[in-house]
Amino acid sequence: MRARFHAELEGVTATLVGMADGVTTAMQRASDALLSADAALAAEVRGDDARIDELYQRVDEQVSELMARQAPVACDLRLTITALNAATDLERMGDLAVHVAKIAERRAPESAVVPEIRDIVGGMADLTTRIGAKVSTVLRTADADTAAELATDDDAVDTLEQELFTVLLDPSWPHGVGPAIDAAQLGRWYERYADHAVNAGRRVIYVVTGESSPRG
Amino acid sequence: MRARFHAELEGVTATLVGMADGVTTAMQRASDALLSADAALAAEVRGDDARIDELYQRVDEQVSELMARQAPVACDLRLTITALNAATDLERMGDLAVHVAKIAERRAPESAVVPEIRDIVGGMADLTTRIGAKVSTVLRTADADTAAELATDDDAVDTLEQELFTVLLDPSWPHGVGPAIDAAQLGRWYERYADHAVNAGRRVIYVVTGESSPRG
Repeated sequence: MRARFHAELEGVTATLVGMADGVTTAMQRASDALLSADAALAAEVRGDDARIDELYQRVDEQVSELMARQAPVACDLRLTITALNAATDLERMGDLAVHVAKIAERRAPESAVVPEIRDIVGGMADLTTRIGAKVSTVLRTADADTAAELATDDDAVDTLEQELFTVLLDPSWPHGVGPAIDAAQLGRWYERYADHAVNAGRRVIYVVTGESSPRG
Repeated sequence: MRARFHAELEGVTATLVGMADGVTTAMQRASDALLSADAALAAEVRGDDARIDELYQRVDEQVSELMARQAPVACDLRLTITALNAATDLERMGDLAVHVAKIAERRAPESAVVPEIRDIVGGMADLTTRIGAKVSTVLRTADADTAAELATDDDAVDTLEQELFTVLLDPSWPHGVGPAIDAAQLGRWYERYADHAVNAGRRVIYVVTGESSPRG
């Protein structure tokens, strides 16, 4: 029974890997669309989110089937629910990539990223791409060191968000209210994406190893 | 077994009622703190969120115990997971009330709500208070009509958010970037609160009646 439970849970994990790869690609392409003001690419990111939602649905079905067949209790039940929660984090990360893409699309052919914030937003884009890839790595390898790195990367995103606000609120900001609101929202979405990635990473470590990752 | 399952599920529902009451009060008080620039009240809202988190934890425990004891399958399993998802919505609503309170606290003794947007933000505050109360009603009475009203109320919040952006982006906006970013964030949080309330309402109808509410 335990062996079959773990075989079914591995099926869930495989779908989670697909979700993690999907949301990493989604945020990377959304960032590319944003930084190059590419409306067509942004629209693709928006369309591709249906695929991530399908995988989320698939996790939900797999977990329901697993529970119906294996009726897990105690530790196994906790693992199963944690896998479901990791899927919720990943689904939300996909939505946040869509939010970024929508801003790119709405502003194109102009860029939503004015020169004053280009380095900061570019930095957030790089970090979140790296963070998404690390969540995939953690899912594939259950490497606790990589999971711990997520918290450090998340701190770096938070720091960049603060720098962004410093620029936006500086009296010398020349672009007025609209671009500032766009930029503040972009900052928030990258920051939320990183937060959910850290949560997903912790949950994945628990699902794959049965041990909680350090809260570092 | 079925009777015991439903008795245990009612215990979960009772905790959800506590959460719904808590997040309704939290957003109402956060809005009061915001509109009256009352830092002390805002700090109380922030502190009180721990109580909502405790109830969330309690739902989690109750669901784990229910699953361990009753090993629900098929429809009962779906009901149980839906109750857990409703709790996640309610917990998030509590967080959004804290976000509103934090803006109030950060700006006090000045008001984060400048005169140009006072009616709009006041309208959003009234609507979300009403929406929170309706989620509690739906939990207590399983009244599908009240649940359906949530979707209409949510549309009204969306409309106010659009009006808010029209004011913020008008060239005559006299307050610069900082207050505009605060206002845009406030609008977003009220809007997200209403969204989660609609989700929670639909889930609660399903948990209490076993039927999906119309997607309205």
